[in-house]
Amino acid sequence: MKDPARPGFSFQAGEKHSVATAAPSGLFARGIADDARRALAEDVGDGDLTAGLVPENRRASAAVIARERASISGRPWFDEVFHQLNHRVVIDWRVADGGIIGVDEVVCEVRGPARAVLTGERTALNFLQLLSAVATRTRAYTDAVAGTAVRILDTRKTIPGLRLAQKYAVTTGGAENHRIGLFDGILIKENHIAVAGGIKPAVEAAKAKGPGPLIEVEVEHLHQCEEALDAGPDRLLLDNFSVADLSAAVATRNVRAPKVHLEASGGVTLETVRDIAETGVEFISVGSLTKDIRAIDLSMRLNLR
Amino acid sequence: MKDPARPGFSFQAGEKHSVATAAPSGLFARGIADDARRALAEDVGDGDLTAGLVPENRRASAAVIARERASISGRPWFDEVFHQLNHRVVIDWRVADGGIIGVDEVVCEVRGPARAVLTGERTALNFLQLLSAVATRTRAYTDAVAGTAVRILDTRKTIPGLRLAQKYAVTTGGAENHRIGLFDGILIKENHIAVAGGIKPAVEAAKAKGPGPLIEVEVEHLHQCEEALDAGPDRLLLDNFSVADLSAAVATRNVRAPKVHLEASGGVTLETVRDIAETGVEFISVGSLTKDIRAIDLSMRLNLR
Repeated sequence: MKDPARPGFSFQAGEKHSVATAAPSGLFARGIADDARRALAEDVGDGDLTAGLVPENRRASAAVIARERASISGRPWFDEVFHQLNHRVVIDWRVADGGIIGVDEVVCEVRGPARAVLTGERTALNFLQLLSAVATRTRAYTDAVAGTAVRILDTRKTIPGLRLAQKYAVTTGGAENHRIGLFDGILIKENHIAVAGGIKPAVEAAKAKGPGPLIEVEVEHLHQCEEALDAGPDRLLLDNFSVADLSAAVATRNVRAPKVHLEASGGVTLETVRDIAETGVEFISVGSLTKDIRAIDLSMRLNLR
Repeated sequence: MKDPARPGFSFQAGEKHSVATAAPSGLFARGIADDARRALAEDVGDGDLTAGLVPENRRASAAVIARERASISGRPWFDEVFHQLNHRVVIDWRVADGGIIGVDEVVCEVRGPARAVLTGERTALNFLQLLSAVATRTRAYTDAVAGTAVRILDTRKTIPGLRLAQKYAVTTGGAENHRIGLFDGILIKENHIAVAGGIKPAVEAAKAKGPGPLIEVEVEHLHQCEEALDAGPDRLLLDNFSVADLSAAVATRNVRAPKVHLEASGGVTLETVRDIAETGVEFISVGSLTKDIRAIDLSMRLNLR
């Protein structure tokens, strides 16, 4: 069980041959507060007209109920929304982030000043339904490759403004983070290769920037793999390869450059991910984890006292 | 065709019996810049390591291609991302926001300094794939009720931090905005009614706050409609009513309080929306427009020069 106040997200930029497992906790904590502040600002504006109808001294209790089976994620954001409205709101969770909740089960109980509970309800649920959607979809992918050694990764195809929140939710669904952004990893594509005059000079230019960030080369055809492996990057991204070509790339890598990791990417679905995993690639990155959202159906039953 | 610099979104808080058609353009424009700045900050951080491999004086041209049929939305955000990176980036659009684009058609061309084009690509596409997803889903709903008088509305079930952007996208898909937030409309629910001691005193308390915001009362059962209509709100929200009960509510309203509008809400799908529209309610609000996202598949083909 993870402590929601110190989520298991912890990324160290520049950790080679690795995926994100630890972010500066200060940066991450600040992100949560900013996310909540922005979401409350856009919803509450200069005041909640309806909550103003409720006397200030009223208290309320509420239960968040899952209307479908889901992997829950986003507790720190949910908590932060209410705490920014009123520090006296208390939230009693029945599940850890990453935990599974069944239909009609209670996710948490919220108690405190009625106006804060009423005002925060929608914003807090918007975070929880979104981040639980990310965790639930991620869990479907990690379950689909259970028993293989492959690691499922996210991408930079995220909802603008919620990169870190979504990357956190991915970790609670059992997958790992690819680079957080453009600042903590190098991905050399066709155009960079064209500018540098080939894969080898492109990788050399990247290495000349100094040690630290992962250096990955994207290849679009099997015949590019030998040259790319010889250039000595940390990882190859095999974009839109067929399963047969992925297997061939793994065989070539095993002989030619056993230390270079392979990542399959492009149009991966729940139907194809298991076959891809069984080719022996180390990583599969899935854009859908963070770009497609089917919000988890949560409702809040509220009682004023 | 809408001018992307002055989108058709224009909401006036407090415009009674109406839906949003105009936001203070200053507020709206500021939102776009903030959204883009935040998204670039989280992706670029202290620098794009890979774009740094490309010489500073290189130029690039790129074409955004739709990989599926979609209603495009989000041009102002896409433009803003590139302009914040470099004012010399020029974007040549082939479709207006709200316009339909077919498979493999060019959405726009981007030209300018190569580093800016490379660095902005993912962030700009993340906005466009998300907001086009909202417009495309919205268009499916508005098409499904074509020929009826009903108006499709969004809700407050939005992606945190992107409320105004999504509400804009909804308008480009042919639907209208419900209240923007808690500050510009009053929605009286069960708990407020309990506190006030009944629907009538609750509506009276809301009216006592002064003229301006729409006053809407949520009812969960047909038998509550007469009391709610008699209380004289602007609108009733009929939550999770069957089609038969919606028809009965419309009949009651027509006799008892013809000036009160009716809004159907709760679990509306593309399969049910037409039947709901034909009951004669004025509005149908659909949470899925903004809480569920199936990102539109867009790709950018880039050439360095």
